[in-house]
Amino acid sequence: MPKIITLTTDFGLTEEYVGVIKGVILTRSPDASIVDLSHQIERHNICQAALLIKSAYRFFPAGTIHLLVVDPGVGSSRKLILLQADGHFFLAPDNGVLGLFLDPEYFQAAYEVICDQYYLSPVSATFHGRDILAPVAAELAAGLDPEAVGPVIDLQVLKKLEVAAVKTDIERGIIAGEIIGRDHFGNLQTNITGSSLKALFSGHESTIRIIMKDTTITGVQAAYFEKAPGEVLAIVNSKEYLEIAVNQGNAAKVLGAVTGEKVTVVKKMM
Amino acid sequence: MPKIITLTTDFGLTEEYVGVIKGVILTRSPDASIVDLSHQIERHNICQAALLIKSAYRFFPAGTIHLLVVDPGVGSSRKLILLQADGHFFLAPDNGVLGLFLDPEYFQAAYEVICDQYYLSPVSATFHGRDILAPVAAELAAGLDPEAVGPVIDLQVLKKLEVAAVKTDIERGIIAGEIIGRDHFGNLQTNITGSSLKALFSGHESTIRIIMKDTTITGVQAAYFEKAPGEVLAIVNSKEYLEIAVNQGNAAKVLGAVTGEKVTVVKKMM
Amino acid sequence: MPKIITLTTDFGLTEEYVGVIKGVILTRSPDASIVDLSHQIERHNICQAALLIKSAYRFFPAGTIHLLVVDPGVGSSRKLILLQADGHFFLAPDNGVLGLFLDPEYFQAAYEVICDQYYLSPVSATFHGRDILAPVAAELAAGLDPEAVGPVIDLQVLKKLEVAAVKTDIERGIIAGEIIGRDHFGNLQTNITGSSLKALFSGHESTIRIIMKDTTITGVQAAYFEKAPGEVLAIVNSKEYLEIAVNQGNAAKVLGAVTGEKVTVVKKMM
Repeated sequence: MPKIITLTTDFGLTEEYVGVIKGVILTRSPDASIVDLSHQIERHNICQAALLIKSAYRFFPAGTIHLLVVDPGVGSSRKLILLQADGHFFLAPDNGVLGLFLDPEYFQAAYEVICDQYYLSPVSATFHGRDILAPVAAELAAGLDPEAVGPVIDLQVLKKLEVAAVKTDIERGIIAGEIIGRDHFGNLQTNITGSSLKALFSGHESTIRIIMKDTTITGVQAAYFEKAPGEVLAIVNSKEYLEIAVNQGNAAKVLGAVTGEKVTVVKKMM
Repeated sequence: MPKIITLTTDFGLTEEYVGVIKGVILTRSPDASIVDLSHQIERHNICQAALLIKSAYRFFPAGTIHLLVVDPGVGSSRKLILLQADGHFFLAPDNGVLGLFLDPEYFQAAYEVICDQYYLSPVSATFHGRDILAPVAAELAAGLDPEAVGPVIDLQVLKKLEVAAVKTDIERGIIAGEIIGRDHFGNLQTNITGSSLKALFSGHESTIRIIMKDTTITGVQAAYFEKAPGEVLAIVNSKEYLEIAVNQGNAAKVLGAVTGEKVTVVKKMM
Repeated sequence: MPKIITLTTDFGLTEEYVGVIKGVILTRSPDASIVDLSHQIERHNICQAALLIKSAYRFFPAGTIHLLVVDPGVGSSRKLILLQADGHFFLAPDNGVLGLFLDPEYFQAAYEVICDQYYLSPVSATFHGRDILAPVAAELAAGLDPEAVGPVIDLQVLKKLEVAAVKTDIERGIIAGEIIGRDHFGNLQTNITGSSLKALFSGHESTIRIIMKDTTITGVQAAYFEKAPGEVLAIVNSKEYLEIAVNQGNAAKVLGAVTGEKVTVVKKMM
């Protein structure tokens, strides 16, 4: 079965950067299937890439190799790592972009990529995605043992991702989170999971209130169309996070909200 | 021979939505070839997607599976359908996006997609492209019988596409149509076909006049370069429709024309 | 081993143009691997496409077929050519887009594409990329002999690319070049090669001065991070050209520089 390699970068699609990564991979692993996740990550936005790969990886088969190149420290002493987590492989700089897989629920093993016999030669100082990560991904797809890329790294030394924590007050029935991203449609994603809503308000989702800035939304809808076009609503989205949306509209524009905006969920007073 | 699956959506390329659809497909049908037609359809613009797939499908081999996800009614009671038309398969919401294949010249059969054993589990309320259409496309690519997706639907109940009709007055030698889209280059596509021009004006194409707003163009060119750079011209484009263009320029900007603008073709008076 | 076909166009990704080229290729050569290099070339910017393919091709295996469709003269008498250079195949209009491969160091052979039995039928006047170049690329991928596409063309009659020449004054130790492009990050690429710097200043790279407009940069860094975030620097980039950049910033914006801006490299006075 051919291996799949996914790509997530902040390179954009105007230059040849993504294409040459594919050339390097296909030169060494002609049967690999390469899938673009996004090349429109905001420049150097490690958190955006970390959230994206965490949402996306589970729709690929176990054994898939996920290559992430959001690398503000290219050429510095930051490490490149191969992470095994939840049955998948991840190749990236050790800058936090894989930080959401360091939980013991996901983490299996990590290796520092240092065995340069797999690299392109010469290695540039500015494009390790092409010169190091792409050929190593191709070798893995072609059957290289993960342990061959370099020594094991301990979980504790890997770079964590600093993400806004959600605060849950079970007794008072309050969840305090924030907006962590917006999509193409202007839908606003919070860091509040559908499962935390279920744990705290199960069976009462229609009576909770979601408060952001001066907007209060009552209830969580099952689908966008349950509100009229143009109306603001809350929904557990396809990534399983609470989302604030406008049916057939753009919540980010309508509400003027940006990443970091506080979102509070409370049980409606009777 | 590996099956081809094409994708047409309004998802954009910034988020992982397109990538995870590919992950779902390749998980079940690793040999499928996936081709992006466009992910830049304007949000919820069913007509744009309908015109695009009608122009594009015939450049793929018979048996190709075309997946379209422009789905303002996701989660509502709108049906999902599998359409067989002109030897190809089309999977989409029943919202008119396949409306240009309902003509008996193309239409072969239609099925309502309801057999949920092929779906991802759970199915979200917001992303049926990923949870229903992608796995069904993959199963079809892997050999599933079309009839296995659900019951036959009658042609009459399928959602039609409301498109501007072209009026042809054969006696007076007039065709009245309109602008239905513009491309990346600013070329303006009308709904007037090359074959209708041929039927009415055959052998006299150089003497007809095309009138839009206060612009009158004389004759239909065989190629852009037949007019000087910057000049307005009419041409039958690569989709076989009458197009108004500016050689090496942007007709939409130069003429200030938008979708819906009336275009009239008349025989030049002697 | 499946053949790779790369695509470089100015079509953008909104319309179906790129997708139908892939459909035409896969219809005839189902096993071909198709890789997008860029579809965001500025409209009709032959020089940009020429520089891109020159940077990119060498990361693909010998025998790769590179299809370039930047074709302001489509439908005119400009030729379509198949070029063999440095072990690769290139299919493009004869308009200079392959001009950087006409040097004897790269050039191997050229053929005029005229054998229309390989074309789609009918051939439109506006989209030879789809109707001529794509099917010919597919036939080559499937094993067609290059000589079968048409007669040999002599190197001397092929269209050259007019590029800014670099002037090197060895005695005075001066290299005079200019900015020839900028990337997604705002990094400014010059036409001065890393090897010319090495030839003239070897061992003294840290003492040279790079002058552009009213900015003077001292020394060439090995990596972006060697300067503080926001600082202007010079580096030999991953394409092996001198580049002017801002660490974690946008040099094009910060310096207000555009293509054509003069760049002078001199040895620092002691």
